[in-house]
Amino acid sequence: MDVSEAIRTKRAIRQFQQTPLKNDDILVILNAGRRAQSSKNSQPWQFIAITDKPILLALSKCGQWANHLAGAALGVAIVTPNPTEKFQTMFDAGQAAAYMQLAAWELGIGSCPASIYEDEKARHILRFPEEWFLRIALSFGYPLNENELISPPRKLGRKKIDEIVHWNSW
Amino acid sequence: MDVSEAIRTKRAIRQFQQTPLKNDDILVILNAGRRAQSSKNSQPWQFIAITDKPILLALSKCGQWANHLAGAALGVAIVTPNPTEKFQTMFDAGQAAAYMQLAAWELGIGSCPASIYEDEKARHILRFPEEWFLRIALSFGYPLNENELISPPRKLGRKKIDEIVHWNSW
Repeated sequence: MDVSEAIRTKRAIRQFQQTPLKNDDILVILNAGRRAQSSKNSQPWQFIAITDKPILLALSKCGQWANHLAGAALGVAIVTPNPTEKFQTMFDAGQAAAYMQLAAWELGIGSCPASIYEDEKARHILRFPEEWFLRIALSFGYPLNENELISPPRKLGRKKIDEIVHWNSW
Repeated sequence: MDVSEAIRTKRAIRQFQQTPLKNDDILVILNAGRRAQSSKNSQPWQFIAITDKPILLALSKCGQWANHLAGAALGVAIVTPNPTEKFQTMFDAGQAAAYMQLAAWELGIGSCPASIYEDEKARHILRFPEEWFLRIALSFGYPLNENELISPPRKLGRKKIDEIVHWNSW
Protein backbone atom coordinates (compact mmCIF):
# COMPACT_ATOMS: atom_id res chain seq x y z
CA MET A 1 0.00 0.00 0.00
CA ASP A 2 1.57 3.30 -0.97
CA VAL A 3 1.86 6.15 1.48
CA SER A 4 -0.79 8.33 -0.15
CA GLU A 5 -3.33 5.50 -0.14
CA ALA A 6 -2.60 4.71 3.51
CA ILE A 7 -3.07 8.36 4.46
CA ARG A 8 -6.22 8.70 2.39
CA THR A 9 -7.91 5.55 3.66
CA LYS A 10 -6.68 5.37 7.28
CA ARG A 11 -9.43 5.77 9.82
CA ALA A 12 -9.67 5.28 13.55
CA ILE A 13 -10.67 1.71 14.44
CA ARG A 14 -12.02 1.13 17.94
CA GLN A 15 -13.63 -2.31 17.61
CA PHE A 16 -11.45 -5.30 16.92
CA GLN A 17 -11.63 -8.98 16.10
CA GLN A 18 -10.44 -11.40 18.78
CA THR A 19 -7.75 -12.70 16.40
CA PRO A 20 -4.28 -12.16 17.86
CA LEU A 21 -1.72 -10.33 15.74
CA LYS A 22 1.20 -12.28 14.33
CA ASN A 23 4.44 -11.69 16.19
CA ASP A 24 6.09 -10.53 12.98
CA ASP A 25 3.39 -7.91 12.48
CA ILE A 26 3.77 -6.70 16.06
CA LEU A 27 7.48 -6.24 15.36
CA VAL A 28 6.74 -4.33 12.14
CA ILE A 29 4.56 -1.94 14.15
CA LEU A 30 7.09 -1.48 16.95
CA ASN A 31 9.94 -1.04 14.49
CA ALA A 32 7.98 1.65 12.66
CA GLY A 33 7.75 3.58 15.91
CA ARG A 34 11.38 2.92 16.65
CA ARG A 35 12.40 4.36 13.28
CA ALA A 36 10.46 7.59 13.72
CA GLN A 37 12.44 10.79 13.74
CA SER A 38 12.65 12.91 16.89
CA SER A 39 14.11 16.19 18.04
CA LYS A 40 17.91 15.86 17.96
CA ASN A 41 17.30 12.12 17.50
CA SER A 42 16.54 11.96 21.23
CA GLN A 43 14.06 9.07 20.72
CA PRO A 44 12.15 10.20 23.81
CA TRP A 45 10.11 7.03 24.22
CA GLN A 46 9.83 3.55 25.56
CA PHE A 47 7.09 1.32 24.20
CA ILE A 48 5.23 -1.14 26.38
CA ALA A 49 3.68 -3.70 24.04
CA ILE A 50 0.70 -5.28 25.72
CA THR A 51 -1.13 -8.41 24.65
CA ASP A 52 -2.14 -9.56 28.12
CA LYS A 53 -5.92 -9.13 28.33
CA PRO A 54 -6.20 -8.27 32.06
CA ILE A 55 -3.54 -5.58 31.62
CA LEU A 56 -5.31 -4.16 28.57
CA LEU A 57 -8.58 -4.13 30.51
CA ALA A 58 -6.98 -2.35 33.47
CA LEU A 59 -5.33 0.21 31.19
CA SER A 60 -8.63 0.84 29.40
CA LYS A 61 -9.92 2.25 32.69
CA CYS A 62 -7.23 4.93 32.87
CA GLY A 63 -8.96 7.35 30.54
CA GLN A 64 -12.53 8.35 29.90
CA TRP A 65 -12.43 7.33 26.23
CA ALA A 66 -9.80 4.60 26.50
CA ASN A 67 -12.20 1.66 26.65
CA HIS A 68 -11.26 0.49 23.14
CA LEU A 69 -7.97 -0.73 24.65
CA ALA A 70 -9.89 -3.52 26.41
CA GLY A 71 -10.73 -5.15 23.08
CA ALA A 72 -7.40 -4.55 21.35
CA ALA A 73 -5.22 -7.43 20.22
CA LEU A 74 -2.21 -5.25 21.03
CA GLY A 75 -1.81 -2.11 23.06
CA VAL A 76 1.27 0.08 22.80
CA ALA A 77 1.85 2.45 25.69
CA ILE A 78 4.09 5.29 24.54
CA VAL A 79 6.01 6.11 27.70
CA THR A 80 7.95 9.38 27.60
CA PRO A 81 10.04 11.67 29.77
CA ASN A 82 8.03 14.37 31.55
CA PRO A 83 5.90 15.78 28.71
CA THR A 84 5.55 19.18 30.33
CA GLU A 85 9.28 19.89 30.17
CA LYS A 86 9.78 20.01 26.41
CA PHE A 87 7.14 20.68 23.78
CA GLN A 88 9.00 18.29 21.48
CA THR A 89 8.25 15.26 23.65
CA MET A 90 4.58 14.83 22.77
CA PHE A 91 5.26 16.03 19.21
CA ASP A 92 7.80 13.25 18.78
CA ALA A 93 5.46 10.75 20.44
CA GLY A 94 2.87 11.78 17.87
CA GLN A 95 5.30 11.16 15.03
CA ALA A 96 6.10 7.69 16.38
CA ALA A 97 2.39 6.98 16.84
CA ALA A 98 1.64 7.99 13.25
CA TYR A 99 4.43 5.76 11.94
CA MET A 100 3.17 2.77 13.94
CA GLN A 101 -0.41 3.28 12.87
CA LEU A 102 0.35 3.75 9.17
CA ALA A 103 2.61 0.67 9.21
CA ALA A 104 -0.22 -1.29 10.84
CA TRP A 105 -2.78 -0.05 8.33
CA GLU A 106 -0.63 -1.34 5.49
CA LEU A 107 -0.92 -4.79 7.14
CA GLY A 108 -4.71 -4.52 7.40
CA ILE A 109 -4.48 -3.75 11.11
CA GLY A 110 -6.58 -0.94 12.56
CA SER A 111 -5.67 1.32 15.45
CA CYS A 112 -6.72 4.22 17.61
CA PRO A 113 -4.91 6.39 20.16
CA ALA A 114 -6.29 6.61 23.70
CA SER A 115 -5.56 9.46 26.09
CA ILE A 116 -4.42 8.23 29.48
CA TYR A 117 -5.63 10.73 32.04
CA GLU A 118 -4.85 8.63 35.10
CA ASP A 119 -1.11 8.47 34.83
CA GLU A 120 -0.45 7.15 38.33
CA LYS A 121 -3.00 4.37 37.94
CA ALA A 122 -1.33 3.45 34.65
CA ARG A 123 2.08 3.54 36.34
CA HIS A 124 0.84 1.07 38.93
CA ILE A 125 -0.48 -1.27 36.21
CA LEU A 126 2.53 -1.07 33.88
CA ARG A 127 5.22 -0.46 36.51
CA PHE A 128 7.16 2.22 34.69
CA PRO A 129 9.55 4.28 36.83
CA GLU A 130 8.88 7.68 38.40
CA GLU A 131 10.83 9.60 35.78
CA TRP A 132 8.68 8.24 32.95
CA PHE A 133 5.13 9.28 32.06
CA LEU A 134 2.24 7.93 30.03
CA ARG A 135 -0.18 10.15 28.17
CA ILE A 136 -1.08 8.09 25.09
CA ALA A 137 -1.56 4.40 24.42
CA LEU A 138 -2.48 2.93 21.04
CA SER A 139 -4.94 0.10 20.38
CA PHE A 140 -4.25 -2.25 17.47
CA GLY A 141 -6.19 -5.14 16.00
CA TYR A 142 -7.96 -6.46 12.95
CA PRO A 143 -11.10 -4.34 12.47
CA LEU A 144 -14.30 -6.01 13.61
CA ASN A 145 -15.94 -4.47 10.54
CA GLU A 146 -13.53 -5.36 7.75
CA ASN A 147 -15.25 -2.93 5.39
CA GLU A 148 -13.59 -0.12 7.31
CA LEU A 149 -10.30 -1.09 5.70
CA ILE A 150 -11.59 -0.28 2.23
CA SER A 151 -14.29 2.33 2.87
CA PRO A 152 -13.89 5.69 1.15
CA PRO A 153 -12.97 8.58 3.46
CA ARG A 154 -15.94 10.01 5.30
CA LYS A 155 -17.29 13.19 3.77
CA LEU A 156 -16.87 16.19 6.03
CA GLY A 157 -14.55 14.13 8.25
CA ARG A 158 -11.92 16.85 8.04
CA LYS A 159 -11.97 20.62 7.59
CA LYS A 160 -11.48 21.78 4.02
CA ILE A 161 -8.06 22.82 2.88
CA ASP A 162 -8.99 26.50 2.66
CA GLU A 163 -10.18 26.41 6.25
CA ILE A 164 -6.77 25.44 7.56
CA VAL A 165 -4.16 26.65 5.08
CA HIS A 166 -2.74 30.17 4.87
CA TRP A 167 -0.24 31.21 2.23
CA ASN A 168 2.98 32.87 3.39
CA SER A 169 1.30 34.51 6.36
CA TRP A 170 -1.98 34.27 8.28
CA MET B 1 6.40 3.79 -2.45
CA ASP B 2 4.82 1.58 0.16
CA VAL B 3 4.50 2.68 3.77
CA SER B 4 7.16 0.33 5.13
CA GLU B 5 9.71 1.48 2.56
CA ALA B 6 8.95 5.14 3.29
CA ILE B 7 9.39 4.55 7.02
CA ARG B 8 12.55 2.53 6.52
CA THR B 9 14.25 4.97 4.15
CA LYS B 10 13.01 8.34 5.44
CA ARG B 11 15.73 10.52 6.84
CA ALA B 12 15.94 14.14 7.88
CA ILE B 13 16.96 16.40 4.99
CA ARG B 14 18.29 19.85 5.85
CA GLN B 15 19.91 20.94 2.58
CA PHE B 16 17.75 21.50 -0.44
CA GLN B 17 17.95 22.22 -4.15
CA GLN B 18 16.76 25.63 -5.28
CA THR B 19 14.09 23.97 -7.47
CA PRO B 20 10.61 25.07 -6.41
CA LEU B 21 8.05 22.38 -5.60
CA LYS B 22 5.15 21.85 -7.97
CA ASN B 23 1.91 23.30 -6.70
CA ASP B 24 0.26 19.88 -6.94
CA ASP B 25 2.97 18.39 -4.72
CA ILE B 26 2.54 21.19 -2.19
CA LEU B 27 -1.14 20.34 -2.06
CA VAL B 28 -0.40 16.63 -1.59
CA ILE B 29 1.76 17.53 1.41
CA LEU B 30 -0.79 19.89 2.95
CA ASN B 31 -3.64 17.45 2.33
CA ALA B 32 -1.67 14.70 4.07
CA GLY B 33 -1.48 16.91 7.16
CA ARG B 34 -5.12 17.85 6.81
CA ARG B 35 -6.13 14.18 6.79
CA ALA B 36 -4.20 13.27 9.93
CA GLN B 37 -6.17 12.01 12.87
CA SER B 38 -6.42 14.03 16.06
CA SER B 39 -7.90 13.78 19.51
CA LYS B 40 -11.70 13.81 19.16
CA ASN B 41 -11.08 14.89 15.55
CA SER B 42 -10.34 18.37 16.90
CA GLN B 43 -7.85 19.07 14.08
CA PRO B 44 -5.95 21.47 16.36
CA TRP B 45 -3.90 23.11 13.63
CA GLN B 46 -3.62 25.76 10.99
CA PHE B 47 -0.87 25.41 8.41
CA ILE B 48 0.99 28.41 7.05
CA ALA B 49 2.56 27.28 3.76
CA ILE B 50 5.55 29.50 3.02
CA THR B 51 7.38 29.76 -0.29
CA ASP B 52 8.38 33.42 0.08
CA LYS B 53 12.15 33.46 0.58
CA PRO B 54 12.41 36.50 2.85
CA ILE B 55 9.74 35.03 5.13
CA LEU B 56 11.54 31.67 5.23
CA LEU B 57 14.78 33.45 6.06
CA ALA B 58 13.16 35.44 8.87
CA LEU B 59 11.51 32.31 10.29
CA SER B 60 14.82 30.44 10.18
CA LYS B 61 16.08 32.90 12.79
CA CYS B 62 13.38 31.99 15.31
CA GLY B 63 15.11 28.88 16.59
CA GLN B 64 18.68 27.89 17.28
CA TRP B 65 18.62 24.94 14.86
CA ALA B 66 16.00 26.28 12.45
CA ASN B 67 18.41 27.60 9.84
CA HIS B 68 17.49 24.86 7.35
CA LEU B 69 14.21 26.72 6.83
CA ALA B 70 16.12 29.45 4.99
CA GLY B 71 16.98 27.07 2.17
CA ALA B 72 13.67 25.23 1.99
CA ALA B 73 11.51 25.33 -1.12
CA LEU B 74 8.49 25.17 1.18
CA GLY B 75 8.06 25.79 4.89
CA VAL B 76 4.97 24.66 6.74
CA ALA B 77 4.35 26.34 10.08
CA ILE B 78 2.10 24.13 12.20
CA VAL B 79 0.16 26.69 14.21
CA THR B 80 -1.79 25.28 17.15
CA PRO B 81 -3.92 26.35 20.11
CA ASN B 82 -1.93 26.89 23.31
CA PRO B 83 0.22 23.75 23.48
CA THR B 84 0.55 23.87 27.26
CA GLU B 85 -3.19 23.42 27.80
CA LYS B 86 -3.65 19.91 26.40
CA PHE B 87 -1.01 17.26 25.97
CA GLN B 88 -2.82 16.09 22.86
CA THR B 89 -2.09 19.31 20.95
CA MET B 90 1.59 18.69 20.23
CA PHE B 91 0.94 14.95 19.90
CA ASP B 92 -1.59 15.65 17.16
CA ALA B 93 0.74 18.20 15.55
CA GLY B 94 3.35 15.44 15.49
CA GLN B 95 0.96 13.07 13.76
CA ALA B 96 0.15 15.71 11.13
CA ALA B 97 3.87 16.42 10.67
CA ALA B 98 4.64 12.73 10.17
CA TYR B 99 1.87 12.42 7.58
CA MET B 100 3.13 15.46 5.65
CA GLN B 101 6.73 14.28 5.71
CA LEU B 102 5.98 10.70 4.65
CA ALA B 103 3.73 11.96 1.84
CA ALA B 104 6.56 14.26 0.71
CA TRP B 105 9.13 11.47 0.87
CA GLU B 106 6.99 9.38 -1.48
CA LEU B 107 7.29 12.27 -3.96
CA GLY B 108 11.08 12.42 -3.60
CA ILE B 109 10.83 15.52 -1.41
CA GLY B 110 12.89 15.71 1.76
CA SER B 111 11.96 17.45 4.99
CA CYS B 112 12.98 18.27 8.52
CA PRO B 113 11.15 19.74 11.53
CA ALA B 114 12.50 22.90 13.16
CA SER B 115 11.73 23.93 16.71
CA ILE B 116 10.59 27.53 16.95
CA TYR B 117 11.75 28.88 20.28
CA GLU B 118 10.96 32.52 19.57
CA ASP B 119 7.23 32.31 19.30
CA GLU B 120 6.55 36.06 19.48
CA LYS B 121 9.11 36.83 16.79
CA ALA B 122 7.47 34.17 14.61
CA ARG B 123 4.05 35.66 15.36
CA HIS B 124 5.27 39.03 14.14
CA ILE B 125 6.62 37.48 10.92
CA LEU B 126 3.63 35.25 10.14
CA ARG B 127 0.93 37.41 11.74
CA PHE B 128 -1.01 34.64 13.45
CA PRO B 129 -3.44 35.77 16.18
CA GLU B 130 -2.79 35.87 19.92
CA GLU B 131 -4.74 32.69 20.61
CA TRP B 132 -2.55 30.64 18.27
CA PHE B 133 1.01 29.42 18.87
CA LEU B 134 3.92 28.13 16.85
CA ARG B 135 6.35 25.53 18.15
CA ILE B 136 7.27 23.55 15.03
CA ALA B 137 7.78 24.42 11.38
CA LEU B 138 8.73 21.91 8.68
CA SER B 139 11.20 22.46 5.85
CA PHE B 140 10.54 20.74 2.53
CA GLY B 141 12.50 20.55 -0.72
CA TYR B 142 14.31 18.30 -3.13
CA PRO B 143 17.45 17.03 -1.36
CA LEU B 144 20.65 18.76 -2.42
CA ASN B 145 22.28 15.34 -2.20
CA GLU B 146 19.91 13.12 -4.17
CA ASN B 147 21.63 10.00 -2.89
CA GLU B 148 19.95 10.62 0.45
CA LEU B 149 16.66 9.53 -1.10
CA ILE B 150 17.98 6.03 -1.73
CA SER B 151 20.66 5.58 0.92
CA PRO B 152 20.26 2.65 3.31
CA PRO B 153 19.30 3.62 6.87
CA ARG B 154 22.24 4.74 8.95
CA LYS B 155 23.60 2.06 11.23
CA LEU B 156 23.16 2.91 14.89
CA GLY B 157 20.82 5.74 13.89
CA ARG B 158 18.19 4.46 16.30
CA LYS B 159 18.22 2.55 19.55
CA LYS B 160 17.74 -1.19 19.18
CA ILE B 161 14.32 -2.67 19.66
CA ASP B 162 15.25 -4.35 22.95
CA GLU B 163 16.43 -1.02 24.31
CA ILE B 164 13.00 0.56 23.92
CA VAL B 165 10.40 -2.22 24.03
CA HIS B 166 8.96 -3.83 27.14
CA TRP B 167 6.48 -6.69 27.03
CA ASN B 168 3.25 -6.31 28.99
CA SER B 169 4.91 -4.24 31.70
CA TRP B 170 8.18 -2.36 32.29
